[in-house]
Amino acid sequence: MYGTLRYGMVGGGQGAFIGEAHRKAINLDGKARIVAGCFSRSYENTLATGAALGIEPERLYKRFDEMAKAEAARDDGIDFVVVVTPNNTHYPVCKAFLEAGIHVACDKPLAISREQACELEALAKEKDLLFMVTYTYMGYVTAKHVREIIRAGEIGKIRTVIAEYPQGWLAREGDWGGKQGSWRCDPSQSGKSNCLADLGTHVENAIATMTGLKVKRVLAKMDIMVPGRVLDDNDFVLVEYEGGATGMYWTSQVAIGHDNDLRVRIYGDRGAIFWSQEDPEKVIIAKEDGAPLVEHHKGYCSIAPEAAKYGRLPKGHPEGWLEAMANLYRSFIECIHAKRNGSFTSDMIDFPTVSDGVQGVKFVEACLQSSANGNVWVDL
Amino acid sequence: MYGTLRYGMVGGGQGAFIGEAHRKAINLDGKARIVAGCFSRSYENTLATGAALGIEPERLYKRFDEMAKAEAARDDGIDFVVVVTPNNTHYPVCKAFLEAGIHVACDKPLAISREQACELEALAKEKDLLFMVTYTYMGYVTAKHVREIIRAGEIGKIRTVIAEYPQGWLAREGDWGGKQGSWRCDPSQSGKSNCLADLGTHVENAIATMTGLKVKRVLAKMDIMVPGRVLDDNDFVLVEYEGGATGMYWTSQVAIGHDNDLRVRIYGDRGAIFWSQEDPEKVIIAKEDGAPLVEHHKGYCSIAPEAAKYGRLPKGHPEGWLEAMANLYRSFIECIHAKRNGSFTSDMIDFPTVSDGVQGVKFVEACLQSSANGNVWVDL
Amino acid sequence: MYGTLRYGMVGGGQGAFIGEAHRKAINLDGKARIVAGCFSRSYENTLATGAALGIEPERLYKRFDEMAKAEAARDDGIDFVVVVTPNNTHYPVCKAFLEAGIHVACDKPLAISREQACELEALAKEKDLLFMVTYTYMGYVTAKHVREIIRAGEIGKIRTVIAEYPQGWLAREGDWGGKQGSWRCDPSQSGKSNCLADLGTHVENAIATMTGLKVKRVLAKMDIMVPGRVLDDNDFVLVEYEGGATGMYWTSQVAIGHDNDLRVRIYGDRGAIFWSQEDPEKVIIAKEDGAPLVEHHKGYCSIAPEAAKYGRLPKGHPEGWLEAMANLYRSFIECIHAKRNGSFTSDMIDFPTVSDGVQGVKFVEACLQSSANGNVWVDL
Amino acid sequence: MYGTLRYGMVGGGQGAFIGEAHRKAINLDGKARIVAGCFSRSYENTLATGAALGIEPERLYKRFDEMAKAEAARDDGIDFVVVVTPNNTHYPVCKAFLEAGIHVACDKPLAISREQACELEALAKEKDLLFMVTYTYMGYVTAKHVREIIRAGEIGKIRTVIAEYPQGWLAREGDWGGKQGSWRCDPSQSGKSNCLADLGTHVENAIATMTGLKVKRVLAKMDIMVPGRVLDDNDFVLVEYEGGATGMYWTSQVAIGHDNDLRVRIYGDRGAIFWSQEDPEKVIIAKEDGAPLVEHHKGYCSIAPEAAKYGRLPKGHPEGWLEAMANLYRSFIECIHAKRNGSFTSDMIDFPTVSDGVQGVKFVEACLQSSANGNVWVDL
Repeated sequence: MYGTLRYGMVGGGQGAFIGEAHRKAINLDGKARIVAGCFSRSYENTLATGAALGIEPERLYKRFDEMAKAEAARDDGIDFVVVVTPNNTHYPVCKAFLEAGIHVACDKPLAISREQACELEALAKEKDLLFMVTYTYMGYVTAKHVREIIRAGEIGKIRTVIAEYPQGWLAREGDWGGKQGSWRCDPSQSGKSNCLADLGTHVENAIATMTGLKVKRVLAKMDIMVPGRVLDDNDFVLVEYEGGATGMYWTSQVAIGHDNDLRVRIYGDRGAIFWSQEDPEKVIIAKEDGAPLVEHHKGYCSIAPEAAKYGRLPKGHPEGWLEAMANLYRSFIECIHAKRNGSFTSDMIDFPTVSDGVQGVKFVEACLQSSANGNVWVDL
Repeated sequence: MYGTLRYGMVGGGQGAFIGEAHRKAINLDGKARIVAGCFSRSYENTLATGAALGIEPERLYKRFDEMAKAEAARDDGIDFVVVVTPNNTHYPVCKAFLEAGIHVACDKPLAISREQACELEALAKEKDLLFMVTYTYMGYVTAKHVREIIRAGEIGKIRTVIAEYPQGWLAREGDWGGKQGSWRCDPSQSGKSNCLADLGTHVENAIATMTGLKVKRVLAKMDIMVPGRVLDDNDFVLVEYEGGATGMYWTSQVAIGHDNDLRVRIYGDRGAIFWSQEDPEKVIIAKEDGAPLVEHHKGYCSIAPEAAKYGRLPKGHPEGWLEAMANLYRSFIECIHAKRNGSFTSDMIDFPTVSDGVQGVKFVEACLQSSANGNVWVDL
Repeated sequence: MYGTLRYGMVGGGQGAFIGEAHRKAINLDGKARIVAGCFSRSYENTLATGAALGIEPERLYKRFDEMAKAEAARDDGIDFVVVVTPNNTHYPVCKAFLEAGIHVACDKPLAISREQACELEALAKEKDLLFMVTYTYMGYVTAKHVREIIRAGEIGKIRTVIAEYPQGWLAREGDWGGKQGSWRCDPSQSGKSNCLADLGTHVENAIATMTGLKVKRVLAKMDIMVPGRVLDDNDFVLVEYEGGATGMYWTSQVAIGHDNDLRVRIYGDRGAIFWSQEDPEKVIIAKEDGAPLVEHHKGYCSIAPEAAKYGRLPKGHPEGWLEAMANLYRSFIECIHAKRNGSFTSDMIDFPTVSDGVQGVKFVEACLQSSANGNVWVDL
Repeated sequence: MYGTLRYGMVGGGQGAFIGEAHRKAINLDGKARIVAGCFSRSYENTLATGAALGIEPERLYKRFDEMAKAEAARDDGIDFVVVVTPNNTHYPVCKAFLEAGIHVACDKPLAISREQACELEALAKEKDLLFMVTYTYMGYVTAKHVREIIRAGEIGKIRTVIAEYPQGWLAREGDWGGKQGSWRCDPSQSGKSNCLADLGTHVENAIATMTGLKVKRVLAKMDIMVPGRVLDDNDFVLVEYEGGATGMYWTSQVAIGHDNDLRVRIYGDRGAIFWSQEDPEKVIIAKEDGAPLVEHHKGYCSIAPEAAKYGRLPKGHPEGWLEAMANLYRSFIECIHAKRNGSFTSDMIDFPTVSDGVQGVKFVEACLQSSANGNVWVDL
């Protein structure tokens, strides 16, 4: 086995949800430990967060750029940084660490403009650094299984895709969802889209990852349902993929009755696959019309080895969202080790990369343009 | 109680599914019996079908127009006719019986053009006749319950609607679905649309019936997925309703893994409702985000009286599709009795009417226009 | 085809549930019509019920024995009688009609003692008459499919069976369930058992029908949960079958949250089957541990022909409890026709017979004895 | 906040499932780290396991008793030990650490005889040490919620309990389930019971924890379904609780189609609760017969605060089995800290204790006696 890596975090101070979640996910397998951080724009928060995590005070930084330089300069500097700041700051933070030669794991969406996203992609390539964008849901064993069986041709040529990601937490008028919701609804922190940028990028990435389909063009209807808002909270997108398949996406934050309901249904000419994030131990497959539906569970012998290897527990022992994220980190960390010892090849990558992040940003931009122009088709 | 009515049927000869289904549904409550028929363009089939049903030979007709006149002339003539012929003949058949002064129950879609549909609507009004269009699914106790609780304001003002009706029976290349599929895929029998006319009209009617929303405009993408077909088999429709709500519909005949999967999800500003035709004993209601989901069953005290009265069996005793259709006929037959004894008022109507049928035809025409013009918005 | 049969009914007057249900089920396929009745101990109720059904007054009888004789004497007398009276009167009523030479369909449980039941069985045999006991649930297409695949050896040798039939309608203290509940809780009308006689006989019959297993002995714990009752309302039964398989049954009328929840799970050495009455379009089959679960729907090509032939509607069009009962009558009526035209053979019988009814009564008696003696094993 | 604790492990060497699972669960929250171990009877395995975990070689022990003494003697000795050896060695291992004054977390079942179990309980009390028995399933947020709402009287007085824990992994003749199955089927390692000791203790503990009911007596039928086995693999247990409630338990390792299917249904006189380990984000509650079923999810405002506080993620973000186990450790670790700083009170304990473990052993012994004596009632 290999030793434990060191990592730092930007964002994720006390009170933030996603930073704590990343830390727990990384803890799970015990392959990396946090040693540095710039957790908040409030230095006090950074100090408090760092103290609770047992980080040495000298590695708690006031500014992310200072952290990038200092850590790059240390012999025991961090092996990678986790970026969990609001969307509009992903770009400068990631850039600083890439320039310092440090591998990056950044929350999605990657950036708030295509230019930012492409620049980060180019920089990572130039510096030969690993750059993961944490589309968590693609870490589930069953999500990987869906990808594998589609690759293997089990459902034939894909004809149409129905995907959705409804939530209900911002349904109430006058309710901005607390800290989590406030920044998402605020253009100065989240860019030109709220719901589609937050949820639609997950949908786009899920379909791209599972099917390998490339989006040719989109037609989007992005709406604001709750009076007083300035960013979208309910979105429809029609999609045409290269090769002729079609897709229909729905994302919402006003869909009462849904918690975090990413669902994917993929129809080929020889079968169909149904997958749901909230029920992640299962994949349902139909092989032809009028033939029985078949339900595969994590841990069954029918699960593809490329997916099954990520399971930590036997069948019937549920693994959840943190385990999915931990699976992304597992591959990311393995790749860092391989980079170090010279054994890295790009086919080792089993996590969403900066290029996936770029696609997400392009998707959102095309949808914004379509919606602004009266729901017309926009090429990607 | 009142006596048993007499009815006739056009279409529904041996080998046809839907005619037999109508007869069984009417049988269920024993409130009308079949006494006349023109079951097929083949007179032999009509004779054989009629014999099996115990109909007197003199009331088995070679032509529907002959039947309309003869029955209208008899003292013991039929009280209503059931029209279950292919879509493109609904218009002349219904017209003949209306002109003969006979109430009509016609399968959906009502007709293959807006002009035909409107003419039938006008004629029924002029003749003061009842005209039911058998959108079967609206007969379920739970479908009626959905309508009632939305009327009662339980989910507030509707914001968005997600509805779908996927089937998989025409997914296979080279397979036209036997007798049922052949005429649906043939423009000379089913008009300009296959899938949307067959399934989309059910979706349109379900949403109109349950929500009362009026469609303002549609944007449709109607596709052919199976090579060799000339009519649509997979359709996406975006909808804007009067008042600002939005909708997204999907219908398909190539969705492997789905049998007959009409599903409706309706989101208001104070709650949401989920209903599924294949699981028709249940309605799921969410009253606000983060509050528990509530599952109502047919037979529960929580079911609205206007819906509950249609249940024949106690809770936990499933009632199905034939019972739903029987519920439409129950109201239709009650209205005929009321017409006879002078007690009829229009608020007694609890079945889909010719006007609902007209809406369906308009919806399909607008979608066809939208799709033909590059997926642009078309006003209804 | 054959003509329509004539039938009469004892019990099932206005206000009774089960008689009306039998009539609707028989109506469904239109193969028999009601022409005589003794619907109630109240002659007024009989007259009113008969009038609503369009029965000639002379065939509305004050007493069942009078009806049996009168109908047997008529040229156009009834072909069969339907007995839907309280449990304790099944015996005399059925006996009267058998002695008059009339085929019998009787609600379950067949009788309130083993002696009564065996006498009816012997009498039916002696008179060479058909005797159906309406264990409705065995009429479902999927229930028949379960039987067929077990017969075909698909799950191998059966090891253990878990079956249950919980209801909640008698859960409330001081609530006797109205007319339906009152007679069931009253020993003078329902015999020595309430819950087990009502629901346990269904469980016993379902397992016997589906698996072919013979009960060797039982160990029962029959309890009264609601204070004030004198008959059981919550029962546990352990079962040993001939050949070594074991079973565990639960029936309850105090299980809040359950409507009418007959569920069967059967485990063999090569697979398992799950079936639920409230979800009767489906059968779930597991072929070995760790292999995917497979969900078969009514209408799928995988459904055994012996079961599939009872489906009236295509896949995805739900059929319910009335259809299940109609399926029993379909075979019963076919057998009566075959008796008439001399083509009858016993393998034509595809409905529960008087012998199944005898087994049910024996099962209840053995359970009563076990429970009375401190939950000891009692041979059947 | 408090600092990180140190722990050691006995058992859990490479190739063992449960030890690795405990380590991951403890990792999750980062509140304790492993510093010592005696992972296997094979010292080589211990060394390899320890090396992979980064443990100093001097704290990798050949024998557990040596480890207990050595760690107790160190200034930086372990704060607690995790015992994950086969069932028959729990007793000596736990005893050694208790005698050394070290808190213990031991896998279930606690021991293989009532005497062993009671001695451990007494010793823990005498030494004033914390002793957790890791009945993992009681760590789920929803399991705690069930306990809380029953405590709060929401379903009234409990009448009956139906609980089951079927698995299918040992269904195949000649298949002993690899390493996991072999020791369970071997009396020399697992004691007198396989299935009931492994799964039945979970059922017993779940019901005791959730309901607070005390078992008065049991009647058990413990069977061997797979030829060649000497220990039970399919068990039925009838239960009478103090106060009059009844229960029915089923455990199986030959139930093909079930993965790890612990399910609990609890019926009171004012409501019922349904909970399933494989679907641990949900609790279904029925408040009275004929009233709607209500589905509560982790993260909903309706979840009791005593349960909700254990959730790490928002609603719709699944948490699984490792999180459940981590929740047990969370309380265990908090109690150890409280013991240290003198703030401990017994009502802080929110994990299964040695006394729960004793109950499990007593339950299994009573069942064994019942089954051996012909399925008679045995008092606990």
